[in-house]
Amino acid sequence: MTLRGSHPLVSGTTANAPLIAAMTGRTPSRRPVWFMRQAGRSLPEYRELRAGTDMIASCLDPAMASEITLQPVRRHDVDAGIFFSDIVVPLQLAGLDVTIKPGVGPVFGEPINTPEQVAALPRLDAAALNPIREAVRLTVAELGSTPLIGFAGAPFTLAAYMVEGKPSRDHLGPRRLMHADPETWAGLADWAADISGAFLKAQIEAGASAGQLFDSWGGSLSPADYRRYVLPSSTRALAPVKELGVPLVHFGVGTGELLADMNRAGNTVMGVDYRVPLDEAEARLGGGVPLQGNIDPALLGAGWDALREHTIDVLARGAAAPGHVVNLGHGVPPDADPEVLTRLVEFIHSVPVGADPRSFSALKEA
Amino acid sequence: MTLRGSHPLVSGTTANAPLIAAMTGRTPSRRPVWFMRQAGRSLPEYRELRAGTDMIASCLDPAMASEITLQPVRRHDVDAGIFFSDIVVPLQLAGLDVTIKPGVGPVFGEPINTPEQVAALPRLDAAALNPIREAVRLTVAELGSTPLIGFAGAPFTLAAYMVEGKPSRDHLGPRRLMHADPETWAGLADWAADISGAFLKAQIEAGASAGQLFDSWGGSLSPADYRRYVLPSSTRALAPVKELGVPLVHFGVGTGELLADMNRAGNTVMGVDYRVPLDEAEARLGGGVPLQGNIDPALLGAGWDALREHTIDVLARGAAAPGHVVNLGHGVPPDADPEVLTRLVEFIHSVPVGADPRSFSALKEA
Repeated sequence: MTLRGSHPLVSGTTANAPLIAAMTGRTPSRRPVWFMRQAGRSLPEYRELRAGTDMIASCLDPAMASEITLQPVRRHDVDAGIFFSDIVVPLQLAGLDVTIKPGVGPVFGEPINTPEQVAALPRLDAAALNPIREAVRLTVAELGSTPLIGFAGAPFTLAAYMVEGKPSRDHLGPRRLMHADPETWAGLADWAADISGAFLKAQIEAGASAGQLFDSWGGSLSPADYRRYVLPSSTRALAPVKELGVPLVHFGVGTGELLADMNRAGNTVMGVDYRVPLDEAEARLGGGVPLQGNIDPALLGAGWDALREHTIDVLARGAAAPGHVVNLGHGVPPDADPEVLTRLVEFIHSVPVGADPRSFSALKEA
Repeated sequence: MTLRGSHPLVSGTTANAPLIAAMTGRTPSRRPVWFMRQAGRSLPEYRELRAGTDMIASCLDPAMASEITLQPVRRHDVDAGIFFSDIVVPLQLAGLDVTIKPGVGPVFGEPINTPEQVAALPRLDAAALNPIREAVRLTVAELGSTPLIGFAGAPFTLAAYMVEGKPSRDHLGPRRLMHADPETWAGLADWAADISGAFLKAQIEAGASAGQLFDSWGGSLSPADYRRYVLPSSTRALAPVKELGVPLVHFGVGTGELLADMNRAGNTVMGVDYRVPLDEAEARLGGGVPLQGNIDPALLGAGWDALREHTIDVLARGAAAPGHVVNLGHGVPPDADPEVLTRLVEFIHSVPVGADPRSFSALKEA
């Protein structure tokens, strides 16, 4: 299966967008920027629209999911929409008993961690993803030449929630299981990989121009455990998407020590956490990989001067990579000021492509 | 101020204990092992003793704090007691409105993050630490030749709780403050450093033979932020303790990328998180530093064979350092099986000092 001629990337609608250019190592017409979690709680129009609607229900309402995806693109003039959904949505669509508890996160009816439970995991019916496809189609039609990024949770992160039955700090449950019963772990991780791959593939086929795999909790793993117990399933998740030929980002929080291993999963772009400077990430990856990141979200609330100085540093270090998609190094905090985000986008767009951001800064300050 | 002749380390009572030998680069009579959070929720005798007593109240009851400290030493035959307390105890003793909410953590009456609040922070009255001193004296008398390790929270971790007013995942509040208002941040961090230093110093002077500074949330910082905004205050915390001449451990979770910077704070031993193999930590530190760690707590629940294999690997990698204090790479999980911990201590003690743990393993399995 490859993309059909009507797909925005194939028809050329988004092929030369700054985001796609940077992700494929070409020179973009402006510095592309978007923000993880740009669609969501930081926006008053989001809070208004979501009022009274459960999280998963809002993800499965194509018109609402589409509108929420579009809100930050309109407001901030970012260079991509990120599809509004949640990594556990495909688990719910597969029939698992999962809800998203406000202020807590995904909560399952019961933890899923025994060999019997793993063997009995349901198959995801392809038609169950139709509300997702429909939301993507609606969104892409509105976005025009601005690319939509599809996304999915990486198998480790999905399995971590399933094994614990809820969010946890140290992810001891899944990390125990992989050592205690590697076979059950592999079964669970493969199941999650197939769900994740199908979810992401559906978004791309419906019109998203790029994809991102989020391994939110991957940073809890040692490199040895990552390589042995996690990388195979993340590779499996990306395999069916990879053959579609769109740029694929791989990102996790606190994963500085895992960058080179994560980069072997089939992605074409690496997302970098705010802790690791981009030039250092470039060195760890051995060069040649477009990078996405990594403004520290804490700086959004630290005043414009500090944010501007930090952003210039991020842009300058990002120049080491063959392509740089500007983003945060973690999601937008719920209490972020949307006006700061808009101003930040404007500033990033104002730094000419190819210019040294540091000299640009000196010019402006002179 | 230096240790007086009656101190266990000076009188020789603990000077040749395996823990102190390993921490000072001498050959221990057996492989020393203790566990972070060994005194606490994993033990039924702890849960029984604590029933009905608030956390901070139990820390301030010298007989109870002492008994809780001794419980795991008796049960597991570990090579050190770790003083039972909480990093926020000295904040409460200084007069801050802080409680420890079960299942949540430290909660403050109000967040402390304005210049006015920081300027008005109270001084810690030296006499307020008397219940701590008394608990240490009672404990040391019982421990005899087994050393007691004193501890304190690092200034960043203390300040993180104060700024947020409660536990948080990403520590955005303190990380914002250091950029938004470096002066207020420095005032807060210095205040926390002085409290932390006084708390640890009181424990050492009362008879603890070593100390550990816990920077639980240090792993949320980039190396640049750590060096600029955090290392100076951690150094300030350890300075008054350093002159007492006891071994000092510095530990934080997820701090693999900060090891070399953290090691400049005045400590003499580095604690290593479970994510970084000890031989890799040794290389990052440039050699010459005794290490503590770093069995993955997840392995405690993964079955004996997996735990044993992992432990042998940790012992083998630890041989690269000039001294190795065996520990977990994070705290004992509350649901850990105490019998597994006892068996683990017995196993670690059974591996002869100087022997290659991997060949020892082959022998045992032959």
